[in-house]
Amino acid sequence: MRIDGRQNNETRPVRITTNYIKHAEGSVLIEVGETKVICTASVEERVPPFMKGQGRGWVTAEYSMLPRATQTRNQREAAKGKLGGRTMEIQRLIGRALRSVVSLERLGERTITLDCDVIQADGGTRTTSITGAFVAMAMAIHKISETKNLPKFPITDFLASVSVGIVNEETYLDLAYEEDSKAKVDMNVVMTGSGKFVEVQGTGEESPFSREELNSLLASAEAGILSMIEVQKEALGPIAGKIGG
Amino acid sequence: MRIDGRQNNETRPVRITTNYIKHAEGSVLIEVGETKVICTASVEERVPPFMKGQGRGWVTAEYSMLPRATQTRNQREAAKGKLGGRTMEIQRLIGRALRSVVSLERLGERTITLDCDVIQADGGTRTTSITGAFVAMAMAIHKISETKNLPKFPITDFLASVSVGIVNEETYLDLAYEEDSKAKVDMNVVMTGSGKFVEVQGTGEESPFSREELNSLLASAEAGILSMIEVQKEALGPIAGKIGG
Amino acid sequence: MRIDGRQNNETRPVRITTNYIKHAEGSVLIEVGETKVICTASVEERVPPFMKGQGRGWVTAEYSMLPRATQTRNQREAAKGKLGGRTMEIQRLIGRALRSVVSLERLGERTITLDCDVIQADGGTRTTSITGAFVAMAMAIHKISETKNLPKFPITDFLASVSVGIVNEETYLDLAYEEDSKAKVDMNVVMTGSGKFVEVQGTGEESPFSREELNSLLASAEAGILSMIEVQKEALGPIAGKIGG
Amino acid sequence: MRIDGRQNNETRPVRITTNYIKHAEGSVLIEVGETKVICTASVEERVPPFMKGQGRGWVTAEYSMLPRATQTRNQREAAKGKLGGRTMEIQRLIGRALRSVVSLERLGERTITLDCDVIQADGGTRTTSITGAFVAMAMAIHKISETKNLPKFPITDFLASVSVGIVNEETYLDLAYEEDSKAKVDMNVVMTGSGKFVEVQGTGEESPFSREELNSLLASAEAGILSMIEVQKEALGPIAGKIGG
Amino acid sequence: MRIDGRQNNETRPVRITTNYIKHAEGSVLIEVGETKVICTASVEERVPPFMKGQGRGWVTAEYSMLPRATQTRNQREAAKGKLGGRTMEIQRLIGRALRSVVSLERLGERTITLDCDVIQADGGTRTTSITGAFVAMAMAIHKISETKNLPKFPITDFLASVSVGIVNEETYLDLAYEEDSKAKVDMNVVMTGSGKFVEVQGTGEESPFSREELNSLLASAEAGILSMIEVQKEALGPIAGKIGG
Amino acid sequence: MRIDGRQNNETRPVRITTNYIKHAEGSVLIEVGETKVICTASVEERVPPFMKGQGRGWVTAEYSMLPRATQTRNQREAAKGKLGGRTMEIQRLIGRALRSVVSLERLGERTITLDCDVIQADGGTRTTSITGAFVAMAMAIHKISETKNLPKFPITDFLASVSVGIVNEETYLDLAYEEDSKAKVDMNVVMTGSGKFVEVQGTGEESPFSREELNSLLASAEAGILSMIEVQKEALGPIAGKIGG
Repeated sequence: MRIDGRQNNETRPVRITTNYIKHAEGSVLIEVGETKVICTASVEERVPPFMKGQGRGWVTAEYSMLPRATQTRNQREAAKGKLGGRTMEIQRLIGRALRSVVSLERLGERTITLDCDVIQADGGTRTTSITGAFVAMAMAIHKISETKNLPKFPITDFLASVSVGIVNEETYLDLAYEEDSKAKVDMNVVMTGSGKFVEVQGTGEESPFSREELNSLLASAEAGILSMIEVQKEALGPIAGKIGG
Repeated sequence: MRIDGRQNNETRPVRITTNYIKHAEGSVLIEVGETKVICTASVEERVPPFMKGQGRGWVTAEYSMLPRATQTRNQREAAKGKLGGRTMEIQRLIGRALRSVVSLERLGERTITLDCDVIQADGGTRTTSITGAFVAMAMAIHKISETKNLPKFPITDFLASVSVGIVNEETYLDLAYEEDSKAKVDMNVVMTGSGKFVEVQGTGEESPFSREELNSLLASAEAGILSMIEVQKEALGPIAGKIGG
Repeated sequence: MRIDGRQNNETRPVRITTNYIKHAEGSVLIEVGETKVICTASVEERVPPFMKGQGRGWVTAEYSMLPRATQTRNQREAAKGKLGGRTMEIQRLIGRALRSVVSLERLGERTITLDCDVIQADGGTRTTSITGAFVAMAMAIHKISETKNLPKFPITDFLASVSVGIVNEETYLDLAYEEDSKAKVDMNVVMTGSGKFVEVQGTGEESPFSREELNSLLASAEAGILSMIEVQKEALGPIAGKIGG
Repeated sequence: MRIDGRQNNETRPVRITTNYIKHAEGSVLIEVGETKVICTASVEERVPPFMKGQGRGWVTAEYSMLPRATQTRNQREAAKGKLGGRTMEIQRLIGRALRSVVSLERLGERTITLDCDVIQADGGTRTTSITGAFVAMAMAIHKISETKNLPKFPITDFLASVSVGIVNEETYLDLAYEEDSKAKVDMNVVMTGSGKFVEVQGTGEESPFSREELNSLLASAEAGILSMIEVQKEALGPIAGKIGG
Repeated sequence: MRIDGRQNNETRPVRITTNYIKHAEGSVLIEVGETKVICTASVEERVPPFMKGQGRGWVTAEYSMLPRATQTRNQREAAKGKLGGRTMEIQRLIGRALRSVVSLERLGERTITLDCDVIQADGGTRTTSITGAFVAMAMAIHKISETKNLPKFPITDFLASVSVGIVNEETYLDLAYEEDSKAKVDMNVVMTGSGKFVEVQGTGEESPFSREELNSLLASAEAGILSMIEVQKEALGPIAGKIGG
Repeated sequence: MRIDGRQNNETRPVRITTNYIKHAEGSVLIEVGETKVICTASVEERVPPFMKGQGRGWVTAEYSMLPRATQTRNQREAAKGKLGGRTMEIQRLIGRALRSVVSLERLGERTITLDCDVIQADGGTRTTSITGAFVAMAMAIHKISETKNLPKFPITDFLASVSVGIVNEETYLDLAYEEDSKAKVDMNVVMTGSGKFVEVQGTGEESPFSREELNSLLASAEAGILSMIEVQKEALGPIAGKIGG
């Protein structure tokens, strides 16, 4: 039995509150258990210099944690004067994952920036950010599609993410912080609504893992992601119907 | 009549939600109209090097805005690699203001760091941060006082802050963003529960102001701050009774 | 009696040496007692990007201290790689204050940068910088007005600044460093030649202050500033006659 | 047929020159096709502050490319003043991978830093760095084991890495740069001599991938890594016999 | 007798391997004894902003050492976030020296960047960088001259550099690291093929030196540089004939 | 005839005002023609970490220019966030030069920091800084020698510096800015009171130079430096008698 009484293949409760920040084109507060992330989507009618004039858009992400999102206070990266390696790795992952389900051609020459700010952390902040950012992005792109003349809705599929791991020789879905810190193997999976992998990142720093273990982890992740996508659909309401159309 | 129908001497609705972030020793979500700030208080059992061995504590503050707290997205200071002048000015102000009502001797050799993170901005973010941070600080100091042997409760008085300004030749209390951007004179006032000034910062960049105008602004601020302190008292409940004892 | 024998309402001797740096369009060495600041005004025929094409000019300021301007040597901010909060706060204040008496429309699309470099510090470096920078700015704008076709002299009023404080329960004008370090309340006031406030920044970190104390401080500051403006007029000679015309 | 005539499941020629840099405790020049990396292992008789006093060692890595390792010159990160996200991600990966086969307890309180400097890049620089760094690390640890009293040789298994990808609907082993830039799916795999996974990082930014494709990629990687380990063994000579003992 | 058995006026063996890095327009590995430097020349068809529109080219240099080029590991400047004073001084010297033998007019509006990366250091890294960078630059300019219509070959003379010093009261040519660290006087000389000085940098921090000693050092350097130029000619083959034409 | 009517072998007027900054242990304003530098010497009773426990002192220097010391305003290095290459090169030179005439053993474990701040620049700012810093340093060391028990006065010789150059085929002593910008060869020489070289830095970027030209430059510099030392002696008064004793 897990520390919070969950089954091995059970995620924590997922709650998505849309329109959480009034200024943003799309925004959610996503809560997965005690992990809470504000995701906003900002639209700019221009693309980065390296993409100018190609008629294609861009999707990028930034990730941060409030200093006291964690059990002990972390120094702000703004005060240190630079982004840490973990932050950069995560925001590159979020951006890459979201771009995999957006047709940049259909989006046209504009940039969508997803800001994922963790206000409370209890494991799975990067996977929760991806799941929440997808919803914020869909809301912003819906807003664009209503005022600009887009050829077709640019989002080609749903996308969500979950962590899985091996703890006490068992495969656990959606690790809370305390579980994560004891895991021998830790894997983050990003998957589309049609069940294809976008990112598979498994690490066995403490203990290398076998093909069988890998398979078990992927199976658990797949089920978890499909349940996350159901919550996304509910949060998006009618906008959900436009995705992958 | 003001844009949101308020009287000249009326503040926006103030709401303080305590224990908003579970890891912090003290935390609130403070909402003043559409301005929303998460304030956390973190306690460390050590002081900065310049204060070591004096038997006194320290109170300091950091301030930040989420990139999309505002109408258009701002670049993160962590991404720029340095804190802007405005941020530094505000966090120096918050720290200075809070220290004015804390007996650092009674606090003992420990540091309280107040993090004020604006998640949605609509004018008055620095004054709202001070008002909210006071409550988070009181909660954290209460927690210390329950486990450590403090000689006497270290907070000597209540403290809150409000902005006032001259807009269309009228004195307005608690400026919303749209009012602030049209104000000829802009003043931030920090005051104690006993009605004494801790900070008075008035700026007439657009138009210098007279002694009479200054007096009118201060009178308006005084009333606004006393009403803020009532909300603080309610949020703090029994802890309020320990302050200034 | 004050440490240097002054009356409570007496400033230290003020001396302004014009044309102190030959390359600058305007320059002074200003000495207020032992505080010595070199102020230069540099003119550029362009404005910052955010102001382009509006037909208006810009006035900005930078402030620094030589490492050994103070009793113990301070590390250079250039060596640290960033400006401190105090520096940023002061240079924002100087720029804002000077802009309050310049018609940016009349100035036309050009930038005046005031560099205030403290070569010896004995209290009041920010107020001395403002008083000196005003003279350097007037000299530079006079030079522009002689070669460019300005509609009207762009400086609308005189401007000077002084510090006041409460030391030993007395209101002191123009605090020297030793007085400043003992002051319970410390206030910097910037005022125009016509007696209106541009900035009022009072801080009672050590001890909050009452309305009566505030009034006493402002009265003392007003007299001090008007005497500073007399010294500015003398230093400027015939240029003084153009101001506020 | 691939651009350089290789079979789909064939790596490029691998060459490891040991003792390439005379000052380092371990060093190699590793060449995988036209990709060339200098890997040095430096030993310090101390550990980072967060590990002090635990009796355990540390293994860490840094990664860089010479500006002209690539087809067009890249600006130096030292000149930019910060490490890029890609660099941080790679050096975190290398360090994590190598630690998975080192018993930090047996190593004792000392740090081994692996510097991987790419002097010529043609795809696979991160996987080549891992394969080469393993050899440099083994040489350095061998040197320690000869002079210090280690309980048992600290390296528990061999470790190598290779990239695989899907190009033109085919699974390719060890992608050269030109192949990599056309790949729909790109995966880096780190594996031990006993065939267990340490890192699996697959990305389908251009096109999500199925379980079947994932399986095919992993099978190809496994064969490639085992052949890399043969080259490592030859390069290490008698030292190879100590590993995993 | 010197530590490695050389005569006082003898350089270490010099070896120049051309075309060492395949992507660069010009590249060498230069070895002077145990000092090894990779020099690449990169051509860009544009000049820095301050030179635009003058019809002239630019030559600039960057210098770096791998962390383990030296006996103990040095922290990377990219990790520190800034270039050290020694690095900046050396790269300014290399650029200045090379420009002295290039007609920027004949080169046309393009930039040649010389990257000198020390992979193993044993004294004389800056002089070795200059000698090697000259060859890489000549190769790159030769490549330009074959495809672009240059009026005349832009390199006006050969250029090489060597260190000299006074060790044990003797004048030594081409100091190895161990000699350099014992030298009372240390001098770097850059000279053209026609025997004229481009840079003379002598330092007697440990012990000031006389005119006679200076003359002896310069005579030794002159002979050493001429022998270096012979090695350059051999490495360049037919390209050598175009220089100074 | 030179632009200001000087003879080829004539320096500009040199004026040294001692005790210019009241807080510093030693300070001068040195004026060489229109070049004006404030040099302060600060004493700290500790040495940098790398020198601890050796019983020896340290002498170091920092150099900066006020933004408007020059004809057009330069951006502050503190605002840029880093020191430029020229600044680093100059401050390394000043420190190295001064250390050559100080017995660090006699000085004992303390650090003297020379700050050279150019308030007005007209050529020769680095040589003027050395000449002025020597006087400030002597004053500070004299102050130490009066209160601490030094075995012997730590300064072993006088030290001054001057620039020389070849302009219009003539050898000029002490170049003003306008001459410097036209010079084909530019050389900075630092020499002791006993006529020995400490630094010789000659650059012929525009045009390489011969041995005869070098000899002519050195002869001119020698005479100029000896005349500078006469001014130093006069400024130091009785302290001069202790030097080299």
